[in-house]
This record gives sequence, structure tokens and C-alpha cells, in this order.
Amino acid sequence: MKTKGLLLVFTGNGKGKTTAALGLAFRALGHGQRVAVIQFIKGSWKYGELESAKCFPGRLDFHVMGRGFIWKSDDMDKDIALARQAWAFARETIAAGEHDLVILDELTYLITYKMIGEDEIIAGLTARPDGMHVVVTGRGASKGLIAAADLVTEMREIKHPFNDGVRAQKGIEY
Amino acid sequence: MKTKGLLLVFTGNGKGKTTAALGLAFRALGHGQRVAVIQFIKGSWKYGELESAKCFPGRLDFHVMGRGFIWKSDDMDKDIALARQAWAFARETIAAGEHDLVILDELTYLITYKMIGEDEIIAGLTARPDGMHVVVTGRGASKGLIAAADLVTEMREIKHPFNDGVRAQKGIEY
Repeated sequence: MKTKGLLLVFTGNGKGKTTAALGLAFRALGHGQRVAVIQFIKGSWKYGELESAKCFPGRLDFHVMGRGFIWKSDDMDKDIALARQAWAFARETIAAGEHDLVILDELTYLITYKMIGEDEIIAGLTARPDGMHVVVTGRGASKGLIAAADLVTEMREIKHPFNDGVRAQKGIEY
Repeated sequence: MKTKGLLLVFTGNGKGKTTAALGLAFRALGHGQRVAVIQFIKGSWKYGELESAKCFPGRLDFHVMGRGFIWKSDDMDKDIALARQAWAFARETIAAGEHDLVILDELTYLITYKMIGEDEIIAGLTARPDGMHVVVTGRGASKGLIAAADLVTEMREIKHPFNDGVRAQKGIEY
């Protein structure tokens, strides 16, 4: 009998949130499990990991939602419609139960920007089928999300090279 | 011309340090880069990622040092000798310059337990060849190590399921 899987949250302003989720994805893939990644902010998963993912044909489903819709748009109604569409897709993916691990990368922004109600998101996450782990990443995880999660790590930035004007490095930043 | 690579440190008491390093490893492998992982505490890299690593024959070199020597031994001299041997291997691996990314997993413990001097470790890390990134993980990164690093993230445990008696989960914890 399958037991309830975990809800993990990687939050905070430091590096390593998406990267830790990526590490979990490859750990799960190594076990022969199926993984879905739903990326709510375009571009946080990079060329390197997408190439690596080709090693696991048919076991990693990768989806990019919206088009970086939160940061640039001047049409708030359109953004909210896109966010709702993205969240509906995530909720269906969870409910379908076809994956052992579902990663909702940068989902926290939808709560922060009040595009989707926190209650609605928590209900969708909590309704995950038995045996499925869900990982949520993003800055500023809300109190309710933290309360609903089983494991929460805050990645705190202590030092960042871009503060010193160092450019992005292949294999590290992308 | 290759420029100096980054020294990254993932520290703190939360989950995600080794997992974020693992994510970086797969990102680099996806770029066709060569990666070395040197594990100072036995067992922090797990079955899942070692299976995934088989996708990249000849490009991921994985080494387990000691035998979990810090936690169990009743022979301190022997432990220090093993730690010195492990560190010498790491230093040679860095100096050899054959990898684009070198991950020194749980290295901080060697400083914390005064098995190797902080100065000696920082000298070895700083002497990395141009173009090589080095990642150090482990709790309690020392001040000198943080000062020497380019990027430091502290993974802070906000909530952990094992506190509530939940057992380790395949694909997540191992």
C-alpha cells in the first residue's frame, strides 16, 4: 500500500532552490521513477539539465507555463488568466497520479502576486495521490504553504558573486 | 582564455545542500563537462543519483573517502590520518585540472573537527586551475571558508518530516 508522499518547499532568497529540486529529479529518475517538472517562470531550468534529461526518455515530462508572464506584462488580466491556466494544468498533473515526483518550480510567485488564492493552491497540493511527492520552489513561501508542507528549507543568500560583478558561468548558472 | 571558476559553498542545517550540488553536477554533465565528486562522509550520495550518473560514462568520477570515519571511530589518530589522505586526494584532483566541476561533499566537517587546518583547505581550494568550479557542502562552514567563497547559500531547516516521525522516502531521501 502506498502512503502519502511528502510536500517539500525550497524557499528563500539564496541560490540552490531550483538546483536542489533538479537534484531530487535526478535522484528519482535514477530509481526508475517518473517525474514531472512544471516551470511557472520561464527560464529557471536551464540548458544543462534539459540535455541531461534526455538520458531518461519518457520518464521526465517538462512543461514551461506562461511566458515569464509575471515580470513583464502590462496587462494584469491577461497575466491572471495565464496563471490560472498554468495552475489548472499543475492541478490536473497532480490529480492524474502518473508521476512519482512533481516539481512546481517558482509556484510561490502565484501566491505572492495574488494571482491564485493560497487556499486553492494548498488544496491542490494536499490532494496529491498517495505515493506522489510534490516539490514547490520559489522565494517568499507563504505561511499557509509552510504549514501545509512536510519539509521546508530556506535557502539564505550569504554571498553572491553577481554582487561583485562576476558574470554567469556555464555549468553553474545555466 | 579561461577565467577563474567559482568557489561555491552550500552550508546550514537544512536539507538540500548535497542535493543542490547534485543538481549542479547534472547541469554540468548536460553541458558535456567533466565532474568529480569526492564524498567525505560515506553515504550522503545515494543510490538514485549514482544510477543516474551511469548516463554519463567517463564524465562523472565518483570517489568515497574514508568509511564514515568521523562519526564512529574510537581511534582519533587513525581518523586524522584518513582525513589527511582524503584531503590529499581532493587537493590532487583539483590540481590535476581534469574536471570542470569538483564537488567536495561534506568537506566542512574536516575543518569543524580540526582534522585539517582551515588555512590548508582554503589554500587548496583557492589554487584551483582556471575554468574549474569547486563546490563545498556541509554544515557549519567556517568564517574563513565563507570569506574565500564566491557564492554561499545557507540551507536553513524550517521544517523536517523526520521530526514528526515520517520515515525516509525513496527518491527523496535516498
